[in-house]
Amino acid sequence: MERIERHVSHGGSQEVWKHASSTVGGDMKFGIYLPEAAMRGQKCPVLYWLSGLTCTEQNFITKAGVQRYAAEHRIIVVAPDTSPRGSDVPDSPDYDLGQGAGFYVNATREPWAKHFRMYDYVVSELPALVEAGFAASEARSISGHSMGGHGALVVALRNPGRYRSVSAFSPIVAPSQVPWGEKALTAYLGDDREGWNQYDAVALVGSARERLPLLVEQGGGDEFLNAQLRPELLQAACAKAGQPLTLNVREGYDHSYYFIASFIGEHMAFHAKALA
Amino acid sequence: MERIERHVSHGGSQEVWKHASSTVGGDMKFGIYLPEAAMRGQKCPVLYWLSGLTCTEQNFITKAGVQRYAAEHRIIVVAPDTSPRGSDVPDSPDYDLGQGAGFYVNATREPWAKHFRMYDYVVSELPALVEAGFAASEARSISGHSMGGHGALVVALRNPGRYRSVSAFSPIVAPSQVPWGEKALTAYLGDDREGWNQYDAVALVGSARERLPLLVEQGGGDEFLNAQLRPELLQAACAKAGQPLTLNVREGYDHSYYFIASFIGEHMAFHAKALA
Repeated sequence: MERIERHVSHGGSQEVWKHASSTVGGDMKFGIYLPEAAMRGQKCPVLYWLSGLTCTEQNFITKAGVQRYAAEHRIIVVAPDTSPRGSDVPDSPDYDLGQGAGFYVNATREPWAKHFRMYDYVVSELPALVEAGFAASEARSISGHSMGGHGALVVALRNPGRYRSVSAFSPIVAPSQVPWGEKALTAYLGDDREGWNQYDAVALVGSARERLPLLVEQGGGDEFLNAQLRPELLQAACAKAGQPLTLNVREGYDHSYYFIASFIGEHMAFHAKALA
Repeated sequence: MERIERHVSHGGSQEVWKHASSTVGGDMKFGIYLPEAAMRGQKCPVLYWLSGLTCTEQNFITKAGVQRYAAEHRIIVVAPDTSPRGSDVPDSPDYDLGQGAGFYVNATREPWAKHFRMYDYVVSELPALVEAGFAASEARSISGHSMGGHGALVVALRNPGRYRSVSAFSPIVAPSQVPWGEKALTAYLGDDREGWNQYDAVALVGSARERLPLLVEQGGGDEFLNAQLRPELLQAACAKAGQPLTLNVREGYDHSYYFIASFIGEHMAFHAKALA
């Protein structure tokens, strides 16, 4: 592991690390914010943040303003890149497939299967690295935006006991039923729609074995709301499954980081309560 | 004037506008945050923010997290681009001269003199536009970063009565005495160093006719501290002139937006007090 960026921020340290990932078969980068207590070696809980289409590890750490709240609540925040990168990693000319668009799945189809294993990377390799290399406790929560909101929901729902809470901003709640998801899941997993269910929060919530604190933030003016996001499908699935859900629809807010920055403080307080 | 971006943010509106500027002889862009009260037509005071080298109107509005504090204090925040842009505007291959590096002067030398008039743009044209086009009162304050910190100090010192308070992050306090400033002032104004004094805060503070509230934030780990910024020169000039100065040197912080985001809340509170 090599530290490639370090900036003092709100009394802690915002860093970017690069490492050779055995899971994705190439280098990965992640941002990590260490509150001052963690820099002194005191173990702190960890929030994992999964970013959306086209993002790298930079977007969330530069635009969301999370550091203020991470410092206040003494939470480490880890934000990985959204896919492996590089000239030896397959790509597509489309923004919604390939590099920058890993969709947090383990791909089974060529040419993606070798590198596009972001599900395992986020669930296993990344937390192991973080918990071995930093003053991180094993108290974990997870959140994300759009494609990363989908990732956070799926990862939390499939791994009972591993996370204390889950939240999402503008998540793709039912990738099996919307164009972004249908395109990506077809490419990465093939045409068998049954196999898609393990990466579809709406499909997973019915069989989930624990009742995690679940918070979803959605902009009412989001340009992708009706075609790609469809939070009402998650609401219906949660109601049917008896999974409590707080869904905040915020009038006028769009899909951008201005929306995330406006409510990230509330999400950090939500996770801090579960991580305490 | 044409609005080219609009995002709801912290209950207000973060917008970007484009307009034909008579001062710089071309199009200019600026970001403007309107707190909810201003959107309802209630007149609010205005903070002008001047950005640093290489920045556009985007850097501050996406990375500083100012909107939370602007909403809290009901302050409009206006962040212009750092120079005119476009294929008909002269440029240089260097990041510290030409487009993105206007240095907030009125250039007198060719090829710069026609377009590079950022001093007049910031002092006159921009506030006139803002006060005519938005619910802005005539209570103004000014701040900025690095080259923009230089701009804020110079603009405030030369225009007594026009601003209620001035602050700066990592400002170039004495451009006449450091490489960035010597290069830019030579190009824009020529070799006559006497003429540079009107754009040099350290030179101006001795003859300033008012005692504005003045706050300077400086990272102790700033990579440009000793070669380009030299806050001790401002400190000495203020002491000699009897100009009160609060200079906060923050251990470990660098020149980046992580530094600005860590202390922008304190600067907004400082300006809010003066603007009340």
